[in-house]
Amino acid sequence: MMTTTTMRPEVLFGVDLDKPMSQQQIVGHNRWHPDIPAIASVKPGTIFRMECKDWTDGQIKNNDSANDVRDIDLSIPHVLSGPVAVEGAEPGDVLVVDILDVAPFPGKATSWGFTGIFSHENGGGFLTDHFPDAHKAIWDLNGVVATSRHVPDVRFVGIPHPGLIGCAPSHDLLNAWNRREADLIATDPNRVPPLALPPEEKNAVMGSLKGSDMQNAAREAARTVPPREHGGNCDIKNLTRGSRVYFPVYIKGANLSLGDLHFSQGDGEITFCGAIEMAGYIDLQVGLIKNGVNTYNMLSPIFRSSPLEPRYSNFLVFEGISVDEAGKQHYMDAHIAYRNACLNAIGYLEKCGYTGEQAYIILGAAPIEGRISGIVDIPNACCSLYLPTEIFERDVEPMKHSVSQKRQVAVTS
Amino acid sequence: MMTTTTMRPEVLFGVDLDKPMSQQQIVGHNRWHPDIPAIASVKPGTIFRMECKDWTDGQIKNNDSANDVRDIDLSIPHVLSGPVAVEGAEPGDVLVVDILDVAPFPGKATSWGFTGIFSHENGGGFLTDHFPDAHKAIWDLNGVVATSRHVPDVRFVGIPHPGLIGCAPSHDLLNAWNRREADLIATDPNRVPPLALPPEEKNAVMGSLKGSDMQNAAREAARTVPPREHGGNCDIKNLTRGSRVYFPVYIKGANLSLGDLHFSQGDGEITFCGAIEMAGYIDLQVGLIKNGVNTYNMLSPIFRSSPLEPRYSNFLVFEGISVDEAGKQHYMDAHIAYRNACLNAIGYLEKCGYTGEQAYIILGAAPIEGRISGIVDIPNACCSLYLPTEIFERDVEPMKHSVSQKRQVAVTS
Amino acid sequence: MMTTTTMRPEVLFGVDLDKPMSQQQIVGHNRWHPDIPAIASVKPGTIFRMECKDWTDGQIKNNDSANDVRDIDLSIPHVLSGPVAVEGAEPGDVLVVDILDVAPFPGKATSWGFTGIFSHENGGGFLTDHFPDAHKAIWDLNGVVATSRHVPDVRFVGIPHPGLIGCAPSHDLLNAWNRREADLIATDPNRVPPLALPPEEKNAVMGSLKGSDMQNAAREAARTVPPREHGGNCDIKNLTRGSRVYFPVYIKGANLSLGDLHFSQGDGEITFCGAIEMAGYIDLQVGLIKNGVNTYNMLSPIFRSSPLEPRYSNFLVFEGISVDEAGKQHYMDAHIAYRNACLNAIGYLEKCGYTGEQAYIILGAAPIEGRISGIVDIPNACCSLYLPTEIFERDVEPMKHSVSQKRQVAVTS
Amino acid sequence: MMTTTTMRPEVLFGVDLDKPMSQQQIVGHNRWHPDIPAIASVKPGTIFRMECKDWTDGQIKNNDSANDVRDIDLSIPHVLSGPVAVEGAEPGDVLVVDILDVAPFPGKATSWGFTGIFSHENGGGFLTDHFPDAHKAIWDLNGVVATSRHVPDVRFVGIPHPGLIGCAPSHDLLNAWNRREADLIATDPNRVPPLALPPEEKNAVMGSLKGSDMQNAAREAARTVPPREHGGNCDIKNLTRGSRVYFPVYIKGANLSLGDLHFSQGDGEITFCGAIEMAGYIDLQVGLIKNGVNTYNMLSPIFRSSPLEPRYSNFLVFEGISVDEAGKQHYMDAHIAYRNACLNAIGYLEKCGYTGEQAYIILGAAPIEGRISGIVDIPNACCSLYLPTEIFERDVEPMKHSVSQKRQVAVTS
Repeated sequence: MMTTTTMRPEVLFGVDLDKPMSQQQIVGHNRWHPDIPAIASVKPGTIFRMECKDWTDGQIKNNDSANDVRDIDLSIPHVLSGPVAVEGAEPGDVLVVDILDVAPFPGKATSWGFTGIFSHENGGGFLTDHFPDAHKAIWDLNGVVATSRHVPDVRFVGIPHPGLIGCAPSHDLLNAWNRREADLIATDPNRVPPLALPPEEKNAVMGSLKGSDMQNAAREAARTVPPREHGGNCDIKNLTRGSRVYFPVYIKGANLSLGDLHFSQGDGEITFCGAIEMAGYIDLQVGLIKNGVNTYNMLSPIFRSSPLEPRYSNFLVFEGISVDEAGKQHYMDAHIAYRNACLNAIGYLEKCGYTGEQAYIILGAAPIEGRISGIVDIPNACCSLYLPTEIFERDVEPMKHSVSQKRQVAVTS
Repeated sequence: MMTTTTMRPEVLFGVDLDKPMSQQQIVGHNRWHPDIPAIASVKPGTIFRMECKDWTDGQIKNNDSANDVRDIDLSIPHVLSGPVAVEGAEPGDVLVVDILDVAPFPGKATSWGFTGIFSHENGGGFLTDHFPDAHKAIWDLNGVVATSRHVPDVRFVGIPHPGLIGCAPSHDLLNAWNRREADLIATDPNRVPPLALPPEEKNAVMGSLKGSDMQNAAREAARTVPPREHGGNCDIKNLTRGSRVYFPVYIKGANLSLGDLHFSQGDGEITFCGAIEMAGYIDLQVGLIKNGVNTYNMLSPIFRSSPLEPRYSNFLVFEGISVDEAGKQHYMDAHIAYRNACLNAIGYLEKCGYTGEQAYIILGAAPIEGRISGIVDIPNACCSLYLPTEIFERDVEPMKHSVSQKRQVAVTS
Repeated sequence: MMTTTTMRPEVLFGVDLDKPMSQQQIVGHNRWHPDIPAIASVKPGTIFRMECKDWTDGQIKNNDSANDVRDIDLSIPHVLSGPVAVEGAEPGDVLVVDILDVAPFPGKATSWGFTGIFSHENGGGFLTDHFPDAHKAIWDLNGVVATSRHVPDVRFVGIPHPGLIGCAPSHDLLNAWNRREADLIATDPNRVPPLALPPEEKNAVMGSLKGSDMQNAAREAARTVPPREHGGNCDIKNLTRGSRVYFPVYIKGANLSLGDLHFSQGDGEITFCGAIEMAGYIDLQVGLIKNGVNTYNMLSPIFRSSPLEPRYSNFLVFEGISVDEAGKQHYMDAHIAYRNACLNAIGYLEKCGYTGEQAYIILGAAPIEGRISGIVDIPNACCSLYLPTEIFERDVEPMKHSVSQKRQVAVTS
Repeated sequence: MMTTTTMRPEVLFGVDLDKPMSQQQIVGHNRWHPDIPAIASVKPGTIFRMECKDWTDGQIKNNDSANDVRDIDLSIPHVLSGPVAVEGAEPGDVLVVDILDVAPFPGKATSWGFTGIFSHENGGGFLTDHFPDAHKAIWDLNGVVATSRHVPDVRFVGIPHPGLIGCAPSHDLLNAWNRREADLIATDPNRVPPLALPPEEKNAVMGSLKGSDMQNAAREAARTVPPREHGGNCDIKNLTRGSRVYFPVYIKGANLSLGDLHFSQGDGEITFCGAIEMAGYIDLQVGLIKNGVNTYNMLSPIFRSSPLEPRYSNFLVFEGISVDEAGKQHYMDAHIAYRNACLNAIGYLEKCGYTGEQAYIILGAAPIEGRISGIVDIPNACCSLYLPTEIFERDVEPMKHSVSQKRQVAVTS
């Protein structure tokens, strides 16, 4: 008889929330580098649990001041749990990852999360010119439901996911990243905020690497902020429980790492620290498709969505085009178009009684959808933002009833 | 007793498919201008029908040659039906429009649509560097289902909608459009394709305007290609039957016009002529919210989504980042990121046996979703493309069964 | 080149709404019998249109009196369009039917439907002891949306479907039906209303059968009221546009017939004439699976649901158990349990300002779901009724906001 | 500043899985009686956790023998956690319960569940005449996903819920239950299995009641098997995380109890022990609507569905009518109709390679939907069973591809 005990999640990576990542019993990492040794190796088919600190390594506290968001040290994030090697994985294979669970740690002290608006000085968020100052909202996470003492009359079911997950790059891939990002930085090297973040030895945490190995690796290791072709910090909210992700493998063992758990997020994660950020755990099961990269033309991760997402069905949708706030026409700029859609939604929510910051936080944290609607109609891209009305415990629909009554008595001439 | 006859759709605007828009009994328009007279005026509450030619005014035929797509005269589109005035509407009001139905004309000769890949010479589509030549697919529209003799093993339920709908601009708004678009063109006036389309008197159709009034208006009237803050050519597939749209009103009477009906469309409408384009009709009911623009901060249209959309639930999702095909890093460019997501999806579908052009057409025409996933993680925007697997009558999932069997026999060490 | 014209819906069966079924150019039928000749024969793969009268053959009018419902002649329904033979179909095959479209006839005089509460004298509805008198609501059908001057503040998207569809029975199957229903009637032959309806020669319409052939067939032909193993009057709302139905074939040619079109319906169709009944058309495509009955153990129809249903997501759910209104305990009686769930919903809606009859009609006509929840917990079956709150334009949720505010200030002791 | 610590779930009721309910530190109950003292009292607004044993009090083991199911002692279930009193609750109020989380206990030894087919001797399930012998399937519960070594190629996301939850009855209500159920039993007192279960002193667990109080209460306390108007053992799968339930209050304090946690269930829970039964915990938040029973006509619980349910979209649907297996016609019997729908689905799944018992277990445990379709068309009720095809990792659709290809080459004559 087959025993079931082999199928239970084993904690491969545990964390002590009172210690920084660099002092954990098993040390994770906060840079991408192929030489960071795996913390464990598992066979295909294994189910295991990874515990994670929040992406800032505990810099943000459950209180009512945003000073911690303002003063965050950005050389520390994202602290990642892993890497986990998978037996038999080789470059060109595809690593299949079933996401089985994502949740905050249970208990009074840990079932909370935060959404931060970054201040302009440390990079800001998507709307930093409109919201230059740091703000913070603390969310209570009760089972599947999020509420916040800082955002009244909002209550929704989260869509928990890892903001950041991917396999280690090969040396070649790492070099390509560094080269292309350096080229970009070189176009405006003194820009504040910078165009991209170069490797940064300070505060690098490199797993079990030591001494000169560690220093050499840290000098060239990639920062974790951007998503890249291996996945990484994609911040795709739909990588939730029940989804299956296919990752290209670049080095022997695959070396999967992850972190930046979110209890929920709106598409775009627009406040930068924009999801409901949390510490917690994730349960995974891994498999392999040998030579899958070539079989499926898999140049970057593909995933199959989950049947278990919050399915709100009544949306108010806001549109934006690529004309900037000064009225200047830009050419097919989906970035500006989505910014306008966000600003239009915020302007609307202000009429519903929210402050701009609260509205901004709602768009970053709740399961809103951001869509590329029209992207070929020169010169304007059109993006749209889908706001589920069911997350509000106040009425946010435009004159729902009175319009309708007016329409009932109207007749044609 | 109240009679129901006042509630039936009256055809306010009819079309003869054998005649160009300029020769219809009631002439529509193909430029935006506040002076184009309304073709009818209705009271709030009225339900009415508008018939529409396809956006090209009938230039594309139901056959197997793409020459008509290649040779299209772009000074003609989009031919619009309207404007319809609403009694009592004044600048600052919000026009409420319930979309009740959108469908092709019934009958053998008319229940079809087309998807075109534009050739590079006349602007091309979103992936024109990869697909520079004109292609065309003809779709059979049978009830709610679309199939194509040019795209095998694809069968899906459409999401019919007007690609283009909005109220007439005021003179001030029109001037702002012309000024900002001229400024953009001036940055590279000889570019092919152009950055934007200036007013074009040739082939302008201006409703019932005549003589010098017509000529003067045509010289400054805005082209219909881009979406703008009044809505216009938004190509938002979710403006489907059952949705309610709120439009800002800029001139007395509101003057609502529409056209460019689509039987279905993927987000982005990426082949340019990328939806399933069709002639057909749309049924609407209108209402008014007096002074709604100010009440709701409504700087551009807002809509409430419909409960009646095709709801596929099993998606394969492709990711893209803002690194271009040459490996160059771009800064937060959602345009390039979405292009990569599209290319990744096409590369995958080629492994499923489709040609690149077929895959491109599928992404443009089927109800795929294009999402802005991460838009704050310098330097990479991350966009994602959600492809419903249920539209395929061949298996497109990566090794669904064999992976799973492998995982069942695997055990932890 | 393949021409598309072969794929367009041809009207195989047309109706003149001003004439009874017996006087149509092509006469349909209102009884089930294997000898009724097919009105046409089509090859597998054919797409065709069937026009239908409403199930009562036009006895109900668009006015504000329920006398027509009260006085209906029940020997006439259901008038069916067909039968259509499929070439090559033989007993034991499975007929595959794609439902492509279902809609009312366009135009002022025809885009309406009715919901009737039957009076106790002619059978009554599911709650006839509570609502013994005839009532009627007329619905305006505008595109995909239904509203009624008789049911205020209700507005929803319909789920159009044929209430009745199936293949002709073989002689053996017909005999089995007649035998078992006669046995049931014989247990209480004088019951009012009767337990079942025996064959009835009066008012039988038997297609093109004439003379003694017609009389002989009419004497033994089965009534159309009940659903049976061939499908028939199943009143399954989910047989809507986009679904695919698999029917067992009992005679050569299959002989598919259908009628009783509904614009919408709640599960159970509880007012008897409980859907939104309408005249209209249905577009179908047929296929064959040879010997499918045995291959798939298909003892009665199977269907694949459509991706295009109205998807309301916020439901109020009412429960019922098998204790009757007098407090008497019944054993595992899902009928009584569902009746209680319906009564509980009606009691609730009365508190929202609806009359009992209006509430009853809403449950019959709107897309509510009726579920068998617990069916093994002696002695009570438990059924539940899912009422979508989004169909109401008045607030029907219990103290949504005030409860929530109360909960926010509460603290644990 | 408001502290968040008051909002964290406190464990009001803990369980030791190695001890029977009668020996827990806080003793729950397995009968309904108003005199069972509350184990705690909370203010409205409180969030708290209740731990639960599985419904059988641990009689079923994680092994491959069904002997434990066969030999179960049915005088023990259902063991319930509670009652919890709510301050201020009085008869006629409505208790509002938000279900925040339901999950198995984490860890190797506890993250599993079972589905049992009961043998005919101890009552059997819904299809006991077809499946008279005991069977058992063990499910591995990994995060949100269930798989079973006893049911190959099935993998689905659960819909966790309490099978049993409700407020304590008043003495009057209890008496009414006992009276009506005794009346039913008296109609066939020696029936095996019995028509209903009378009060049973043996093995009664009555919370902290002692001595003669306990004995007196046990003699009249209601068994927990049936759902009743207070809710109780409703086995409604949609009472899942994110739903809000409104319960009538019958006694001071309301005294809410619950248990019988399910990781998943099909509508009807047809194998009797038909859900995925588990031990685990549930997190709740409670509120009050004073005098709500009268305000809302709330004769039995009402709930608002959750936005977080597994949303499979592709269903195969099986129909059943009220003709029994011997061909006998029954009058409007939804019980028999649903049984036929279940048998038809099982017959189909047998053709897909499952044993009858496996198919039966799938229908009981997976999130299938059971619908009352037609319930007014004499003499046949029609019920339907919606089987999501996406839960299978083998192809279960009827000739999906070959049928379709056949249709493509077919043309009309």
